[in-house]
Amino acid sequence: MPLNGERAFEVMQREGVDTLIASSTENVYYVSNYWSLGKKLGCGVQAYAVLPIKGAPAVVAPIDEADLVLDSQTWIDDIRFHGSSKVDFSRPEEPFEQTELLLKLYEGAKPEADGATALIKALEEKGLTEGVIALDASGLTPSLYEQIKSKLPGAKLVDGASLLREIRLVKTESEVERIKRATAITEKSMEDALEIARSEITELDLAGMYAHSVTYDGGHVTQNLIGFRERSAFPNPVPSLFEAERRDLVRMTFGCTWDHYHSNISRTAVIGRPLQKVQRRWEAVMSAQDAALDAVEPGAKIGDVCGAALKALEDADVKGFSGGVGHGLGVECNERPWIEKDAEGELLEGMVVNIDIPVLELGWGGTQLEDTILVTSDGFELLTRTDRTLYLL
Amino acid sequence: MPLNGERAFEVMQREGVDTLIASSTENVYYVSNYWSLGKKLGCGVQAYAVLPIKGAPAVVAPIDEADLVLDSQTWIDDIRFHGSSKVDFSRPEEPFEQTELLLKLYEGAKPEADGATALIKALEEKGLTEGVIALDASGLTPSLYEQIKSKLPGAKLVDGASLLREIRLVKTESEVERIKRATAITEKSMEDALEIARSEITELDLAGMYAHSVTYDGGHVTQNLIGFRERSAFPNPVPSLFEAERRDLVRMTFGCTWDHYHSNISRTAVIGRPLQKVQRRWEAVMSAQDAALDAVEPGAKIGDVCGAALKALEDADVKGFSGGVGHGLGVECNERPWIEKDAEGELLEGMVVNIDIPVLELGWGGTQLEDTILVTSDGFELLTRTDRTLYLL
Repeated sequence: MPLNGERAFEVMQREGVDTLIASSTENVYYVSNYWSLGKKLGCGVQAYAVLPIKGAPAVVAPIDEADLVLDSQTWIDDIRFHGSSKVDFSRPEEPFEQTELLLKLYEGAKPEADGATALIKALEEKGLTEGVIALDASGLTPSLYEQIKSKLPGAKLVDGASLLREIRLVKTESEVERIKRATAITEKSMEDALEIARSEITELDLAGMYAHSVTYDGGHVTQNLIGFRERSAFPNPVPSLFEAERRDLVRMTFGCTWDHYHSNISRTAVIGRPLQKVQRRWEAVMSAQDAALDAVEPGAKIGDVCGAALKALEDADVKGFSGGVGHGLGVECNERPWIEKDAEGELLEGMVVNIDIPVLELGWGGTQLEDTILVTSDGFELLTRTDRTLYLL
Repeated sequence: MPLNGERAFEVMQREGVDTLIASSTENVYYVSNYWSLGKKLGCGVQAYAVLPIKGAPAVVAPIDEADLVLDSQTWIDDIRFHGSSKVDFSRPEEPFEQTELLLKLYEGAKPEADGATALIKALEEKGLTEGVIALDASGLTPSLYEQIKSKLPGAKLVDGASLLREIRLVKTESEVERIKRATAITEKSMEDALEIARSEITELDLAGMYAHSVTYDGGHVTQNLIGFRERSAFPNPVPSLFEAERRDLVRMTFGCTWDHYHSNISRTAVIGRPLQKVQRRWEAVMSAQDAALDAVEPGAKIGDVCGAALKALEDADVKGFSGGVGHGLGVECNERPWIEKDAEGELLEGMVVNIDIPVLELGWGGTQLEDTILVTSDGFELLTRTDRTLYLL
């Protein structure tokens, strides 16, 4: 399961939080293993996971996602349902095992009218309506947030979304495994796309090959940005029918999910031999990423990791670069820690972080190198395995 | 462009709304044509579209999505930026046309610190901080909503998300074209998947072929649910390694997007010859969908359309079915009108609606037929083109 339980309780205790309530698809999944499809598709579905510091946790799901709760093999026993069912569950004669389990869920369910009601009832029955409740609002509309708040007059509500981001900072082994798998799919698919790169091909051709290869491996495409020549300097080059010529720069940012965990990688290629300026730019990008990586170890100040990269870019006379050089990666593609100059806090063993150096010069071109690392006890492990090189096609 | 401008102004006028503010990725896209990638990826990005009943509209975007605003060919001239840039836009000697336009955006931008500040400033400069403001909260966190609200003490805030759903009820020609294209991709890809269906194949094999085919055609997979045998009765059969045998039911729900517009279709198949009970169930499903379709015409009461289907199911002695028989389809996969028994309101020419009849009997199996129609002046046009039949494989 994704949840880092030990860390969750440590953080809750430190912050004086009695009960944590997850509400976004990602956070409910993180806490409980259950992924709400209806919520992700934006059908107005409500789903929650309740994690108290004392007592048993609970999951709240729409009754017609009972099969998804079952499939999730959630570690949480107390499952509360809401909404009405479209299923006939009059007992058949010899159901097979999975159906038997699902029938039990349906037969035992006393669904509440809606998710918020089911959530409040769970809190009431567990004696969790008072004390400090960290409510994750990232999966709530403002009106739903107000509705829940008004039903908890005895509680002190604090920000559950940031608490979950804090907990999620340090990954479990099973999270790292998923990120590794997503990364492997992304890298293989990028190399499949590069196989077909040559003059006269379009950005869309490459993007199609990437998506094709990810899909073939069972991943889900999340990012597929490809820019040729001057378009390589665009921050978000959505693939177009623009055709490559010899000597063009090709800047690529790719991502996918595997089992709801993200990968994210950027590479730069040249069709043919690189111009001298391209070579110089690439050396600047490499040196900046190397400088950041050299600074990575448990206890390193995050601001220093960013600072090392920025200094290398400055030394190489790169202009226009501001902001951070990376971000955490997990059940969300962009999550803490943000690798920024002014960031507080330190790197911790078990963090998964992208070190991302985009150098974009409008009217000339863009080069970018983005890799994923796991912070280990004595430094880091590179989770991306493809060459950190300027690809010559 | 997606926006139904005439209808937007009609609805705003009728509801006494002076200014409409869109905040979700989908609603900003609907109003302005600009799709915020960062917002969709959940990176904490803010994007807005402001549509006043008098005066010029505006778009608010992060400066490093200036290229996406440009690509969108938005009809809105007043573009406001926020955030800091990672781009070097010192003017090159001979930029090509697209870069030239992007340079102008960067050079003219005076980005505000954040999205909410840029939004409020736009409202202030346009004299739109008072009167009735319909604020779409569907793209806002509760704290962002509070922040914006506190900056507009002279305004009466009403629910912009429902107003936009009301406006979006009637589709423009360009919206219908996109839905048609998404539907064509989904149907072709479903047929590709059915080509390989036979005994001993797994649900994942079929799902992979569907995703493969959608991706090949440039669509983005949204729904890919496939259940064999008893799993066909599960409400959300996430494809597994479960293998098909002769006579198994295969229930499928597929969807994809094209240019951010959705398709959604469900079909049922049998491997080999159907059992008598399957045949009877299918006839019930067909008759219910036919009954609903017979009731479709502009001015038809939505509750009656649902009622007609429910009566047909009752006549066929189908148990366990409750709730609605469909939903609107557009820039969101599930949107108004909801085809429900107690629904108020009427069908209007230009609505795009799914008529969806799932009959799920746990422990036995599920059959489902879901098609997309466009309500026309004299009835409807079926946007799905594949046979509405029980597929025999």
